[in-house]
Amino acid sequence: MKQKDINRENLLNYGVALLMQQGYHGTGLQEILDAVNVPKGSFYNYFSSKETFAAEMIEHYIEPYLIQLQTYLNESDGHSFTALERYLNESIAELEQTQFKGGCLLGNLTGEIGDTSDICREALQKALDRYRDVWEIGFHRAQKEGSIRKDKTALELADLWVNSWQGALLRMKIEQSVMPLKQCKEVILNDFFKA
Amino acid sequence: MKQKDINRENLLNYGVALLMQQGYHGTGLQEILDAVNVPKGSFYNYFSSKETFAAEMIEHYIEPYLIQLQTYLNESDGHSFTALERYLNESIAELEQTQFKGGCLLGNLTGEIGDTSDICREALQKALDRYRDVWEIGFHRAQKEGSIRKDKTALELADLWVNSWQGALLRMKIEQSVMPLKQCKEVILNDFFKA
Repeated sequence: MKQKDINRENLLNYGVALLMQQGYHGTGLQEILDAVNVPKGSFYNYFSSKETFAAEMIEHYIEPYLIQLQTYLNESDGHSFTALERYLNESIAELEQTQFKGGCLLGNLTGEIGDTSDICREALQKALDRYRDVWEIGFHRAQKEGSIRKDKTALELADLWVNSWQGALLRMKIEQSVMPLKQCKEVILNDFFKA
Repeated sequence: MKQKDINRENLLNYGVALLMQQGYHGTGLQEILDAVNVPKGSFYNYFSSKETFAAEMIEHYIEPYLIQLQTYLNESDGHSFTALERYLNESIAELEQTQFKGGCLLGNLTGEIGDTSDICREALQKALDRYRDVWEIGFHRAQKEGSIRKDKTALELADLWVNSWQGALLRMKIEQSVMPLKQCKEVILNDFFKA
């Protein structure tokens, strides 16, 4: 990897971590640049503005979640519902381990700047659509396997699911507890969505 | 009303409006003080810090929603489910009229500062609990009236509902559409929760 690519990757990784903790307006560019040893003058070799940097962080953030969920589904061998549950159980365990910190960057940034930055709003929409699409694939397979109800489309269920999960993640931050996540999974997924 | 009380009320009202649009870190105290003509030096006669001011704004913000929902329930005369729907339909119509701006201050601030300000987190928890409690009353009445399923407690349904609705409000901001709200109401309330 060239130094330029390493710097870019470092900026994105460290930026996501800070953005998760402090939000968009609470995170200064200088703080990120200092931590990854990139001089301010050369930031614009990587990104054209703080706003486009944030948009790229949004895309960078969602990537591993997409890969993880897709991998579980690919490995599920006819048990898609179990794959979805496995993904959620691991997410819940991880959030418990990190003391409910951060939650979901997509939800946090939507709350903070969803109204005010069109560039970020479009990046959020794209990231959430991609995430929703993997859930739709999972629900569609689970419908065919007979574990998820068929009176609603997989797309409808996927939209409802990602929204409800986002709400549960917000509530987790307020309650400092994974209970809202467990409830969302137990009642919406394991009860209402079940075939 | 004394001038001091008028100033305090003005600070809260204008503060809530700005906080909704710009978030906590994006809103400067000076901006609010200038707009309501309160000199910076006297701000601390009203609130001890920006953080406690935000906590009071959270409380101030939720009050009319509690009153509205409670009023609809009190007027419902044995049709609690219809009262809940009426409240939601009005909320949706209002958000459509204001071009999806803001969403819910509780959700927005949870995303932005739910992790970093204990004072605000506690205010958010209190406000959300109070809001959830009114929903619980509504669901409990609707259960007794036979319109809501009884295999889950009214408290469980109320928690699940306020969380899912928060998630739908976030998605509304991304999509710039009330579709996520309508879907949440149609599927979760009018289908899954129905007796």
